[in-house]
Amino acid sequence: MTASAYTLLADEALTLDERRTTYSPAAVAIEGDSISYVGPPTRETSGTVIRLDGCVLLPGLIDVHTHTPMWLFRGLTEDVPRGDWLPRRMRPLEALVGPRELRAGALAGCLELMTNGVTTIADRYNDMGEVAGAIEESGLRAVVAHSLYDRDAERGLRETEALLERFGADPARSRVWAGLGPHATDTCGPDLLRRVAALAERSGGRVFIHLAQAEAEVAAVRARGSAGCAAYLDELGLLGPTVVVAHGTYLTDGEADLVGGRGTAVAHCPSSNAKIEGRVAPVGRMRRAGAVVGLGTDAACCNNGMDLFAEMRTAGLVNKVAADDPAAFPAEVLLRMATTEAAAALGIAHLVGSLETGKRADVIAVDRRVPHLLPWHDPVANIVYAARASDVSAVFVDGRPLVLDRRPVGLDAERILA
Amino acid sequence: MTASAYTLLADEALTLDERRTTYSPAAVAIEGDSISYVGPPTRETSGTVIRLDGCVLLPGLIDVHTHTPMWLFRGLTEDVPRGDWLPRRMRPLEALVGPRELRAGALAGCLELMTNGVTTIADRYNDMGEVAGAIEESGLRAVVAHSLYDRDAERGLRETEALLERFGADPARSRVWAGLGPHATDTCGPDLLRRVAALAERSGGRVFIHLAQAEAEVAAVRARGSAGCAAYLDELGLLGPTVVVAHGTYLTDGEADLVGGRGTAVAHCPSSNAKIEGRVAPVGRMRRAGAVVGLGTDAACCNNGMDLFAEMRTAGLVNKVAADDPAAFPAEVLLRMATTEAAAALGIAHLVGSLETGKRADVIAVDRRVPHLLPWHDPVANIVYAARASDVSAVFVDGRPLVLDRRPVGLDAERILA
Repeated sequence: MTASAYTLLADEALTLDERRTTYSPAAVAIEGDSISYVGPPTRETSGTVIRLDGCVLLPGLIDVHTHTPMWLFRGLTEDVPRGDWLPRRMRPLEALVGPRELRAGALAGCLELMTNGVTTIADRYNDMGEVAGAIEESGLRAVVAHSLYDRDAERGLRETEALLERFGADPARSRVWAGLGPHATDTCGPDLLRRVAALAERSGGRVFIHLAQAEAEVAAVRARGSAGCAAYLDELGLLGPTVVVAHGTYLTDGEADLVGGRGTAVAHCPSSNAKIEGRVAPVGRMRRAGAVVGLGTDAACCNNGMDLFAEMRTAGLVNKVAADDPAAFPAEVLLRMATTEAAAALGIAHLVGSLETGKRADVIAVDRRVPHLLPWHDPVANIVYAARASDVSAVFVDGRPLVLDRRPVGLDAERILA
Repeated sequence: MTASAYTLLADEALTLDERRTTYSPAAVAIEGDSISYVGPPTRETSGTVIRLDGCVLLPGLIDVHTHTPMWLFRGLTEDVPRGDWLPRRMRPLEALVGPRELRAGALAGCLELMTNGVTTIADRYNDMGEVAGAIEESGLRAVVAHSLYDRDAERGLRETEALLERFGADPARSRVWAGLGPHATDTCGPDLLRRVAALAERSGGRVFIHLAQAEAEVAAVRARGSAGCAAYLDELGLLGPTVVVAHGTYLTDGEADLVGGRGTAVAHCPSSNAKIEGRVAPVGRMRRAGAVVGLGTDAACCNNGMDLFAEMRTAGLVNKVAADDPAAFPAEVLLRMATTEAAAALGIAHLVGSLETGKRADVIAVDRRVPHLLPWHDPVANIVYAARASDVSAVFVDGRPLVLDRRPVGLDAERILA
């Protein structure tokens, strides 16, 4: 037994392993940063016993697309006409804040994420050196990328190199690791993207890019002579399993098939797409064509929170409507898009996404002793459609408790939110 | 000062009066069942002072379409192909339960609703005599209607008369009052609906009916020789301001204009429509044509909860998509669809829906000291898109506290949920 050993005892565990194993009651033992046992409670326990009566254990949720510092801007960009959001609303706001504010916003965003049961994020924004410091402090698992633009390519590439130097690109080696974050297909020309592709190849880092999020983006890429945003990335070798494209809102059917056919990872952000664009991205089509799809919250000023329970529910509702079929996107698919499939999208399925012996101990407990989670006929549907982030009672990342009894353990919430 | 006098002190109040008055900080004084003061805190307070530090006060939310007993069935009808939900899934489940189970389910449903910040419901189901007893016990404000079908019309009309006898039809005279609940346009033929219309005229009760919820319903009404479900109701004089039609999912554009043109009250249930039908009801069109639109949760086995915060958010997202316009359905409209406009739909806007002196004291407090409700740049957007039912800290109906410190006051939750 080590100092960092725990045994979690709960009413039930949904492991989300390949065989959909569940245990009721359930025990999860943690040694160091990893899960050493998942199964029925045994007579022997190791380490500190944490009783989670009334709770169901789940793998921590994985948010494949967010911008934690934009926590600062929640509520400042409401009900904006299509096309105005980024250029007319966000850019002026972004000009008002510097690295210190972004760091403070990121820490508040991380606090929100962990209390929401999110254990891993793919975060990308400006001044990512500062922001990454806040994420590291928070205790979340994260891949961080600095946003790259043509307008400031040299500085951006230097920041990216510095992040790669500082954190490495291997998620098995550090809880926070680095990726490459070209901003979008219109703001990054072929020269910059070729350099990004070469650096990704050399460093082993994944590439994170916004794809066809806005009509203006599509128009700009076409004006540059490409058939479309997806074709543009494909010509540069930037579609495929090590690239995570966010949104894809305005992709044509053919482009959706292309993205999926390359096995690209897709960050599906249904609330953000509906709220900012009034659209549903063709994620059903991308997924059928072979895309690996994880759910992203996008930023707190887009959706308007960083809540994957809301995102699972919203993804189900809007995609059933988009498919014109209430049987489409069944609950287990939605839950996997926030866990196992999200892990695959980030290339960390060998580490997290399910509760299995040997995986990292990223575990959450959801308290089901509330009127809105009973009866407990269908645990998966209850988690996807009825549970709220506020039902999360405990959160562990790398075996370390970040939330216990619904309260953050290591962070001073009052100071952060002041 | 009377025994039932309170002064609520909070950080802020959104009154939702016509002038959109807000107070920060705020006090709401309650004498008996009514609000005696709304405004800035004064030096003098009356009655018991309840400090709601960190909270924003709002009018209690109004759910214009639900079926509380179906709380029992949550999670039992997931991801069902279109058309199967009612005949193949719900009807067999309904055959398994009797009045005692329905009463127990209704009480659990009311417990869920009040902890979610809902203070008024329009409830309708079978065995409504039993169910109404549970609602009365819960302390919620409610209009109750027994579901009427051709297959059992005589018994149903007797139950309806008994409800009218017991509760009256005047919401100003009793906290629980009665309406008339013909089930739907296919399950109620012209003879039954003529008798309903006559009884409504005689009693003053409102009529609550499902309208064009399913394709099979539309087909059955057309087979009966009507142009459509809305035309059918209109021929019988059952469109207009004293009729509340639920859903309208499969209305044509012309029918939506007809429903709206008559000033009909519409219960919009966006989560239920998306989940069970894969559709968005043409509620934007109905509203533009003159319909009064309130939000309904529908039942816990449809959506899968009775949470108007989720419903406001979902209504915004799916209707922005349906309108192909992210500026459509701005946040204040959504909040009014759960408060002032919902009250108008039920004919109780003179009593509740806003925080104003002389109105009934149906008040809720939302605790905003949480990472997902900060910053507080836009209170209305934060309430609609970022707040959760679990943030509701206190609930008053008719001046009586039903929830304090997030816990039900008068109900024994453990016994009800056992």
